Amino acid sequence: MIVEKSFLMQIAAAAAAETLPRFRNAGAVDNKYAVGFDPVTEADREAERAIRQVIRSAYPDHGILGEEHGSENLDHSHVWVIDPIDGTRAFISGLPVWGTLVGLTIDGKAQAGLMSQPFTGELFYCDGEGSFYERAGDAGEPRRLKTRDTTALADATLFTTTPALYKAGKRLAYDRLEAVVRLPRYGVDCYAFAMVAAGFVDIAVETGLQPYDIVALIPIIEKAGGVVTRWDGGPAETAGDILAAATPELHRAALDLLNSG
Amino acid sequence: MIVEKSFLMQIAAAAAAETLPRFRNAGAVDNKYAVGFDPVTEADREAERAIRQVIRSAYPDHGILGEEHGSENLDHSHVWVIDPIDGTRAFISGLPVWGTLVGLTIDGKAQAGLMSQPFTGELFYCDGEGSFYERAGDAGEPRRLKTRDTTALADATLFTTTPALYKAGKRLAYDRLEAVVRLPRYGVDCYAFAMVAAGFVDIAVETGLQPYDIVALIPIIEKAGGVVTRWDGGPAETAGDILAAATPELHRAALDLLNSG
Repeated sequence: MIVEKSFLMQIAAAAAAETLPRFRNAGAVDNKYAVGFDPVTEADREAERAIRQVIRSAYPDHGILGEEHGSENLDHSHVWVIDPIDGTRAFISGLPVWGTLVGLTIDGKAQAGLMSQPFTGELFYCDGEGSFYERAGDAGEPRRLKTRDTTALADATLFTTTPALYKAGKRLAYDRLEAVVRLPRYGVDCYAFAMVAAGFVDIAVETGLQPYDIVALIPIIEKAGGVVTRWDGGPAETAGDILAAATPELHRAALDLLNSG
Repeated sequence: MIVEKSFLMQIAAAAAAETLPRFRNAGAVDNKYAVGFDPVTEADREAERAIRQVIRSAYPDHGILGEEHGSENLDHSHVWVIDPIDGTRAFISGLPVWGTLVGLTIDGKAQAGLMSQPFTGELFYCDGEGSFYERAGDAGEPRRLKTRDTTALADATLFTTTPALYKAGKRLAYDRLEAVVRLPRYGVDCYAFAMVAAGFVDIAVETGLQPYDIVALIPIIEKAGGVVTRWDGGPAETAGDILAAATPELHRAALDLLNSG
């Protein structure tokens, strides 16, 4: 085991204390960029601050890379990668399908991580050995996550945030993939990747991700039996265009189609 | 008050007893139609059966119109309109944004209704006088629902299931609307309409709805201050292409744009 579950839960609790009271509470919504619409709430900033505090207290020399407050100690072998609220648009729209993402890379490879959805009380996590799900209030041990055994694109359900995000040739590549799967659906950001790990969705595909959008999810998917890489087959830790699939065969088939243009 | 809250909660509980144990439990997924992919789970059928039982016990002569088990007594002034699981694709994908919809029409006008999301424990309902939200485990009185006061399209967030559902001229109409709103997002079915009523989303727009997809939501939106009609301005109870908006001004502006082609 690389990270104790209790430590991951401590991180999730610190974040939830900042996000949950502000969810559906009409907090201030800023625009991060002058052009376009990329809301960042106070919850986002405060949650990352709280997460950093928990990590620094336990591992003062570890690196930290966050969406809101930048980076520190990135020359350390161990780097924590934080997205306090993945799915800020869902958050401001009142939808409980955003998540807090915190992953740990060791020498550049994602090894452990969590996705927490505090409104539903759900925690998806990888401790370095296995991937697990647990829900606040549920009795018994955490449930081990296992991807579905889908190998054919024609049998696959696929999620992406929206086709509108794919530019030029990437849109054509995405459209090729969407055309052959059984069911394409849009929306839900990190939640789609969690559902791949949990065995309810077969493919999650996105374009233009940042490391903090995906690092936490990589070990959760991998230790559940799935495969997640860049579209060029490179390591998902370097982010960009990302493909996650339930099985190696399905991943290969989807990757081939994305790159067949 | 037209319907007691306790009766609506009885309906929600009967449905939840059938849906919740089957959510994320890999139950049998049928294809309702030979062509295409329209999953209907056992949960769908059993939940509607349970809901009908509750209604029949209390009001044996009322009409009932359901998605799964057809219609009865439709010549009665009071007709209950049931969608046991709105958002079956979300349901089978493990996403907690489906809902059980039950509405009551009196002489063709939707007067009361509920949307229940049992995984999150949420109940959105209209008793005929006001619209309310309550969540299992929350302390205190139900919260009164109130739409946002957005009047300009440029300030509006908009949800639709997916643009791919709009055919020919309707797609052009939808695209005109999407082009001018602040933030368009896809997915989440009935949950988007509930978020309009709750004041977190400004516009929900759909095409090709059935009465059971929308009747329950009409009074919830209207008694929260919103407006919901067909695209041609006709009563939403007759379903088809539906537009819900947070304010009369916003509804007017969106309707004008949809019909400006």
